[in-house]
Amino acid sequence: MVTLSVTGGDVLLPDLTTTRADVLIDRDSGTILEIGSDLEGDETLDAEGALVTPGFVNGHCHTPMTLLRGFADDKPLDHWLEEDIWPAESEFTAADVRAGAELGVLESITSGVTGFADMYFHAPEIAAVVDRAGVRALLGHGIVTVGKAEEAARADAEESLAFAREYDGAAEGRISTAFMPHSLVTVGAEYLEEFVPKARAAGLPVHYHANETQNEVSPIVENHGVRPLAYAAERGLLEPEDFVAHGVHVDDREIELLSDAGTSVIHCPASNMKLASGMAPVQRMLEAGVSIGLGTDGAASNNDLSMLDEARDAAMLGKIAADDAGAVSAETVVELLTRGGARALGFDAGRLEPGAPADLAVIDLEKPHLTPSHDLVSHLVYAATAADVRHTVCDGRVLMRDRDVRTLDESAVLDRAETAAEEIAARVGA
Amino acid sequence: MVTLSVTGGDVLLPDLTTTRADVLIDRDSGTILEIGSDLEGDETLDAEGALVTPGFVNGHCHTPMTLLRGFADDKPLDHWLEEDIWPAESEFTAADVRAGAELGVLESITSGVTGFADMYFHAPEIAAVVDRAGVRALLGHGIVTVGKAEEAARADAEESLAFAREYDGAAEGRISTAFMPHSLVTVGAEYLEEFVPKARAAGLPVHYHANETQNEVSPIVENHGVRPLAYAAERGLLEPEDFVAHGVHVDDREIELLSDAGTSVIHCPASNMKLASGMAPVQRMLEAGVSIGLGTDGAASNNDLSMLDEARDAAMLGKIAADDAGAVSAETVVELLTRGGARALGFDAGRLEPGAPADLAVIDLEKPHLTPSHDLVSHLVYAATAADVRHTVCDGRVLMRDRDVRTLDESAVLDRAETAAEEIAARVGA
Ligand SMILES: [Zn+2]
Ligand SMILES: [Zn+2]
Repeated sequence: MVTLSVTGGDVLLPDLTTTRADVLIDRDSGTILEIGSDLEGDETLDAEGALVTPGFVNGHCHTPMTLLRGFADDKPLDHWLEEDIWPAESEFTAADVRAGAELGVLESITSGVTGFADMYFHAPEIAAVVDRAGVRALLGHGIVTVGKAEEAARADAEESLAFAREYDGAAEGRISTAFMPHSLVTVGAEYLEEFVPKARAAGLPVHYHANETQNEVSPIVENHGVRPLAYAAERGLLEPEDFVAHGVHVDDREIELLSDAGTSVIHCPASNMKLASGMAPVQRMLEAGVSIGLGTDGAASNNDLSMLDEARDAAMLGKIAADDAGAVSAETVVELLTRGGARALGFDAGRLEPGAPADLAVIDLEKPHLTPSHDLVSHLVYAATAADVRHTVCDGRVLMRDRDVRTLDESAVLDRAETAAEEIAARVGA
Repeated sequence: MVTLSVTGGDVLLPDLTTTRADVLIDRDSGTILEIGSDLEGDETLDAEGALVTPGFVNGHCHTPMTLLRGFADDKPLDHWLEEDIWPAESEFTAADVRAGAELGVLESITSGVTGFADMYFHAPEIAAVVDRAGVRALLGHGIVTVGKAEEAARADAEESLAFAREYDGAAEGRISTAFMPHSLVTVGAEYLEEFVPKARAAGLPVHYHANETQNEVSPIVENHGVRPLAYAAERGLLEPEDFVAHGVHVDDREIELLSDAGTSVIHCPASNMKLASGMAPVQRMLEAGVSIGLGTDGAASNNDLSMLDEARDAAMLGKIAADDAGAVSAETVVELLTRGGARALGFDAGRLEPGAPADLAVIDLEKPHLTPSHDLVSHLVYAATAADVRHTVCDGRVLMRDRDVRTLDESAVLDRAETAAEEIAARVGA
């Protein structure tokens, strides 16, 4: 057995208290062996003056969209998609998707993310990056059928199913998959009705955008006479292993449906603010027992992939939405950031205790903005940023040590992404 | 003449375009001499791969409150003040105020802030820190008269006036001052009526909290029959040199009053979200011609003093408040972050051009979250964080070089702040 020890830090325990302790990890199995005093490993990571937290889980992303960071801003969702994002994305080659995924995964590792969910096309390229980079990911091919001939639409759904079947369990089990209709309004009911049972037969969860804007609610009410999540439930899309992105415009009955079904919601506060989509009723959902995780959504509507930003945004926006400064507290947000996201994605991670996967981040506390040390959970949510992450460990492997990413060549990734992005912009004439 | 050149970066010009150029600075006068090619100075700051921006202006802060960062969170304004903040602040000694101001100014310099406004007690301690640290600041003693006997109330007002008179122009002109009633509800009308004319006679601007919560509006409407800013105008508190913090709950008539008067509003989005105070109508105020700057407010309700966080929050919350993703654009926010804040505080800064004060920040762009380089103004608002600031220059003097603060001893400041904060917490029994 080869071991790794993370020594001298304050460890954030599952009950959200902290204790000064070392963490001993079995690198072969990728799990935590012990949390205690004087634990020596074959390799050591220094956590003095730092907080050892579960790795952050980004529950909803489109990593290759990092290539469109800052490409188009300050526009509402429909115009932004139709005038800027979709034309640019139609120019993405497989190599572009890989370059964007590399950039997104690099940024994720540097910000303490150890697991994420991704919906995109050319998904095998993303899987290759995840395999190499050492992170954990739930991947899928996003299906859009509206505006497509039947053959093309069916091919898209088949591709999502085939990818999910083939890649589930890849990268020594770090990759899991889902069947991913883009949303309830961009995929026709007939395709959901045909393909979701096939996904279930293959044991796959389903992930899709739901109730992000009012424009995603009204057409379903008009055409089907029920609100989107009732429509989803009727088609078998609201199972305990499923998770939906956004859930901004949900009514009380839909919150009850989510809670009863055990379907998780991935709350994406930055994207919801930047696109003026609205404020998700996070506190109400929590009180109703809905499982919630946090997500950045794509970098083009954020514009970064830092889950610490997302955590701060969730606490801030949650209070405004509830008109209550006590809503969506720092403790709650840390739960969403770690266990909530892990639960949504079916990862066994999100907690530091013996037997748990060794997915963790070490946050440097010796900074002006993290002084004094009244409350480390508060600091994590309200003051820490991605740059405070000192080390990132996933599955027992050190992905970043002292800000140096060991599984990706940072300057090569930045160069490839810059070149790919410039070429895409040139092709669309931007 | 001794010169400083900032070389090889992309310089953000007053029209918000960027150009690859060097910036030549006269260190004696503290002003920019030239922006152009191949400018050599006696000292050089490397800006390759970086964006050179005007230094950020924090238009409303209480720097010593950094000692209460994370001390009490997730509570509404009134409970938070009465149960946690005021009892703790009552324990602050002059030495504590100095330790907290050092921590706040240190954090400000590391996040690219070159100028700020501060309202607190033991204000001479803050002035001493500003003098030594090399930043620009508008300082004042905050007055509270409610709950005080007349003698104590008058003494508080006299202290504000005396401090403002004595310290205006201190630190070779980097310190300016204002008369600072804490708010329209915490200072009695009789004191405003007596002391504001004295402040005017001394040539002083007035700074106060206004319309932060509904609880600051209702009592004035009930007792005086007009809304707060009409009440302020009637008492001579709405002059072009004055600036108010917050302006969350303002109606159309009050927006018109602000616009007509030329009084600036300091928008504090993070504080407004964290305390669930509400959403300021920033886009409506801008369209009405109100001058706006940004502020962090105290660290206890934020919880950091990073103006780049505040910029992102302003753009994000501004869109939700206006229900329009086009509202409060990145370009607009950069204006508020630099010129808007400078105008509010009466600083001649906030722009990079010959003759302007050499107050600037250099932002490292060679980072995953700032790649690719489609739009540097977008990156500044939506993706850059305090840790991306490479150098900070104020009044022609290098305050931070390659993340090393040269005017304050970082580790000593952190130690003193930690000790002071622990002792305060022990004294209040927290
Ligand atoms: Zn999405
Ligand atoms: Zn304030």
